[in-house]
Amino acid sequence: MGDQATPPAPELAAMAINDGPCLKHPFSDRAPVRSIVCRPDGGAGLAGQRVRAGGWVKTGREQGKGSFAFLEVNDGSCPANLQVIVDGGVADLSTLVQTGTCVSVEGLLKVPPEGTKQKIELRVEKVLHVGLTDPASYPIPKTKLSLEFLRDHIHLRPRTNTISAVARIRNALAFATHSFFQEHGFLYVHTPIITTSDCEGAGEMFQATTLISEAEKLDKELILNPPPTEADIEAAKRDVGEKSSFVAQLKAAKATKEDISASVADLKKVKENLSRVEERAKLKPGIPKKDGKIDYGQDFFGRQAFLTVSGQLQVETYACAVSSVYTFGPTFRAEHSHTSRHLAEFWMVEPEIAFADLQDDMNCAEAYVKYMCQWLLNKCFDDMELMAKLYDKGCIDRLRMVSSTPFERITYTEAVQLLEEAVRGGKEFEKNVEWGIDLASEHERYLTEDIFKKPVIVYNYPKGIKAFYMRLNDDSKTVAAMDILVPKVGELIGGSQREERYEVIQQRIVEMGLPLEPYEWYLDLRRYGTVKHCGFGLGFERMILFATGIDNIRDVIPFPRYPGRADL
Amino acid sequence: MGDQATPPAPELAAMAINDGPCLKHPFSDRAPVRSIVCRPDGGAGLAGQRVRAGGWVKTGREQGKGSFAFLEVNDGSCPANLQVIVDGGVADLSTLVQTGTCVSVEGLLKVPPEGTKQKIELRVEKVLHVGLTDPASYPIPKTKLSLEFLRDHIHLRPRTNTISAVARIRNALAFATHSFFQEHGFLYVHTPIITTSDCEGAGEMFQATTLISEAEKLDKELILNPPPTEADIEAAKRDVGEKSSFVAQLKAAKATKEDISASVADLKKVKENLSRVEERAKLKPGIPKKDGKIDYGQDFFGRQAFLTVSGQLQVETYACAVSSVYTFGPTFRAEHSHTSRHLAEFWMVEPEIAFADLQDDMNCAEAYVKYMCQWLLNKCFDDMELMAKLYDKGCIDRLRMVSSTPFERITYTEAVQLLEEAVRGGKEFEKNVEWGIDLASEHERYLTEDIFKKPVIVYNYPKGIKAFYMRLNDDSKTVAAMDILVPKVGELIGGSQREERYEVIQQRIVEMGLPLEPYEWYLDLRRYGTVKHCGFGLGFERMILFATGIDNIRDVIPFPRYPGRADL
Repeated sequence: MGDQATPPAPELAAMAINDGPCLKHPFSDRAPVRSIVCRPDGGAGLAGQRVRAGGWVKTGREQGKGSFAFLEVNDGSCPANLQVIVDGGVADLSTLVQTGTCVSVEGLLKVPPEGTKQKIELRVEKVLHVGLTDPASYPIPKTKLSLEFLRDHIHLRPRTNTISAVARIRNALAFATHSFFQEHGFLYVHTPIITTSDCEGAGEMFQATTLISEAEKLDKELILNPPPTEADIEAAKRDVGEKSSFVAQLKAAKATKEDISASVADLKKVKENLSRVEERAKLKPGIPKKDGKIDYGQDFFGRQAFLTVSGQLQVETYACAVSSVYTFGPTFRAEHSHTSRHLAEFWMVEPEIAFADLQDDMNCAEAYVKYMCQWLLNKCFDDMELMAKLYDKGCIDRLRMVSSTPFERITYTEAVQLLEEAVRGGKEFEKNVEWGIDLASEHERYLTEDIFKKPVIVYNYPKGIKAFYMRLNDDSKTVAAMDILVPKVGELIGGSQREERYEVIQQRIVEMGLPLEPYEWYLDLRRYGTVKHCGFGLGFERMILFATGIDNIRDVIPFPRYPGRADL
Repeated sequence: MGDQATPPAPELAAMAINDGPCLKHPFSDRAPVRSIVCRPDGGAGLAGQRVRAGGWVKTGREQGKGSFAFLEVNDGSCPANLQVIVDGGVADLSTLVQTGTCVSVEGLLKVPPEGTKQKIELRVEKVLHVGLTDPASYPIPKTKLSLEFLRDHIHLRPRTNTISAVARIRNALAFATHSFFQEHGFLYVHTPIITTSDCEGAGEMFQATTLISEAEKLDKELILNPPPTEADIEAAKRDVGEKSSFVAQLKAAKATKEDISASVADLKKVKENLSRVEERAKLKPGIPKKDGKIDYGQDFFGRQAFLTVSGQLQVETYACAVSSVYTFGPTFRAEHSHTSRHLAEFWMVEPEIAFADLQDDMNCAEAYVKYMCQWLLNKCFDDMELMAKLYDKGCIDRLRMVSSTPFERITYTEAVQLLEEAVRGGKEFEKNVEWGIDLASEHERYLTEDIFKKPVIVYNYPKGIKAFYMRLNDDSKTVAAMDILVPKVGELIGGSQREERYEVIQQRIVEMGLPLEPYEWYLDLRRYGTVKHCGFGLGFERMILFATGIDNIRDVIPFPRYPGRADL
């Protein structure tokens, strides 16, 4: 550290701040840490540049008897920290070194002495801002914290290495998704969140309503201002009667025009009062009912409304018009599921392609998954290295394998045969294997992890276990459905060719005991200019679990929602 | 049409289908119409290529006494149609010519005779698929249909020229949004849809709940299977009493081990029955209450939950950790608003930047709006031409002006002075102008459309009309807020520098009569490592209205939700 006291050379001091290539944040006078340290040379080539930088102190320590301080500063733009060195003469060092402190500083980039890990460090000349952190109360001090503990501090956890790396990986996968579909000519369609179509059974849906809040508002109002009693109504009626007779009397008595007008005006007032009183008398506390049932006619949309469980049916209306489309949005399940694989609110990607069949669907899904894996290898390698170090040694190799290996494709019938063979060979499953069952997670993972050791597409499932909209195959026993199974998470994608034949889909709806009326709009797509089409859904958080090797889905979404928890 | 009978040259017949550059859809054997007609030469250079194409018939007519048919086919990939010519010998022409029919065909591309509008046409050799449309019942025949009429046929309206063009423009603006923020180093963060933070007053929020559906389920169950009566409970208690004494008797009588075990087992059974009966006796029909109020402890999340009105407060937790972030997602307002500018469900873009102030915020917002305008000019010019033709002559010029002109920047105080001057000059507004008012739409539009004739950024608003989280200026009277006003729609963007000073924001919350407790997590961002930051929100549908010149917001979102309507 012999160079710490060296004054900056005059020509450097005169240099503009953040003058180097890409060193300027576009909408801030600060250089992102990434632009300094994430370079092929680790930033060494920037030595001599004057920059402003900022971030939060990961670790800080005073040295040389308080004559200077080392700070590891991170601003979330990359996993690497910027090493910042502050002289005791520049600032009160004790305020800077606490983990969680925010600093914004200006200084010169220098190459550190031999033997240091960093390739560049920032020698501070001016401290522009300090956001203090009291180490005694800071909820996430630097000691190693479990992901479970961090879930109770959801507003601060993005400051940790893991959660910020997940945020960058999630961001990369989201943009990879848009890039993939845009490059291939798909239109992004915003399907509705609030829906009146109940696609898979209302039992598991959240209701979106204003009935309760309106009822609560009314209850409060009726307490402040009680509804009229029978006596109030009688009194109001009596007023009307009296004023009426009075008008009649005046008219009979041929009173002056002014007197009659005045009494008619009075009558109008008491009549208005009566209708107001009668209207208020109808107000009933509580949620409005009709024939003993909740009166959804009075809800915001005039009918019962839910949060969507999938945008598929709706996006089909766009596929059957503009051909290649996709959705990417939040979906909801009100299941009381406490597993590490389920959320009440999660994001789904759902492409839909017209003029395409199940093979095209598989081709698209395989290309999309490969594209995302390659994208992470290209754009998030440093974050992936962190994941490999902390959570899953094999995650980088897995991305490489998936991005470069053709997926296995087998029919459901072949899959069952393979599993039955495995059972005969001594493999034990909790759930029995036989043709007709819905494959359990243990079966799916055995196929992809043990038998094939790569992604497997299983297709042509028994119709009895699949949805009404999947296209019936010629064998009349199976439907053109496909699932993509991947190591680590099992089912990543579920898709199908859609039944485009009007008579067949109508019969399937009836067979499954569903009412036709709510699906008339969906049937219209088959009634008018029907087209062969297919699509699939990818659980976005499952993809992040697959990529990172993190175990719990609650740690790969910024604000997890599950039974009993919806923080913030 | 003299060339209609010309047989294809042998060397062309031998060419692979869709063999031309970009003629192959990546996941279908069909060439998108765009890849054929949207070329600098209008497709003429593709003459001689054999392709498969498909789409929906816009208009069709038989000619030459039924010897051939002309079809204008559109697949939604671009506004232009592909001209398709089918010979009577190839297919039953009468099934093809109805508007709305879906066709998939294979044939040769040829240059049409001189004097035709098209630069290329497809001579069909094989019809691969026909999806019939009965013109008698087809809800959207080719006659000109109003946008209002189309709102009643929301599942079919994407097949119209206008709604498909809006879909492409909306898609382009969405991808432009992601591209802009990704290019500038922002991370896309998914803020929650279901929230327990009530940011702007619960009155206008939808509730997300399972309480009603659970209550309805219970009501049904209690009808099928009524709850136990007092007598049932007494009987169950009596059973327990009797079995207990019997066990005691057997023990006293030193009965065999087997007899005692059997009676103990019996006792266990009747005890279990008693607790089951007592448990069921507690079931009450209707929504669960506690102390006269709804018991949200029994709701899915253990507390009252709403649909988000903005992701801002939540995304600030990420800005204060990873610096530059944005959200792009659905937001909700349960307002009974029937205007052409409001929806109950709409999409918002909300960036948030750490280490940045109000000037940086304005710079970012201006750059983003310009970027979107330029993007549309570059990528959707044909769709914009359609908008200019059908809805707003000036829309293309407006995009050019906005993308190339610096936005005017004036303080709120200056804006009020300008409006007051206008009033003195004879301009009449419905709402009075004076310092302290919230500018009305008429004022905003006058500033941008009449005074400046370009986008205007108004900043430093009176604190009394703005939210608690906006940074208090040194004058203690105004806050560092800014709105961007644009011709045609008025307010497009609202943003602010956030109050980062702990004491100041705490006092502002108290001053506004809000409780502190729900904001403790938000205060933590100021308590620990606080940072200067700012952000803004753009109403995505407003941007589409601005770009296209379409009047009603219900026509620029695929599935509009407003009071009384939530189709599909």
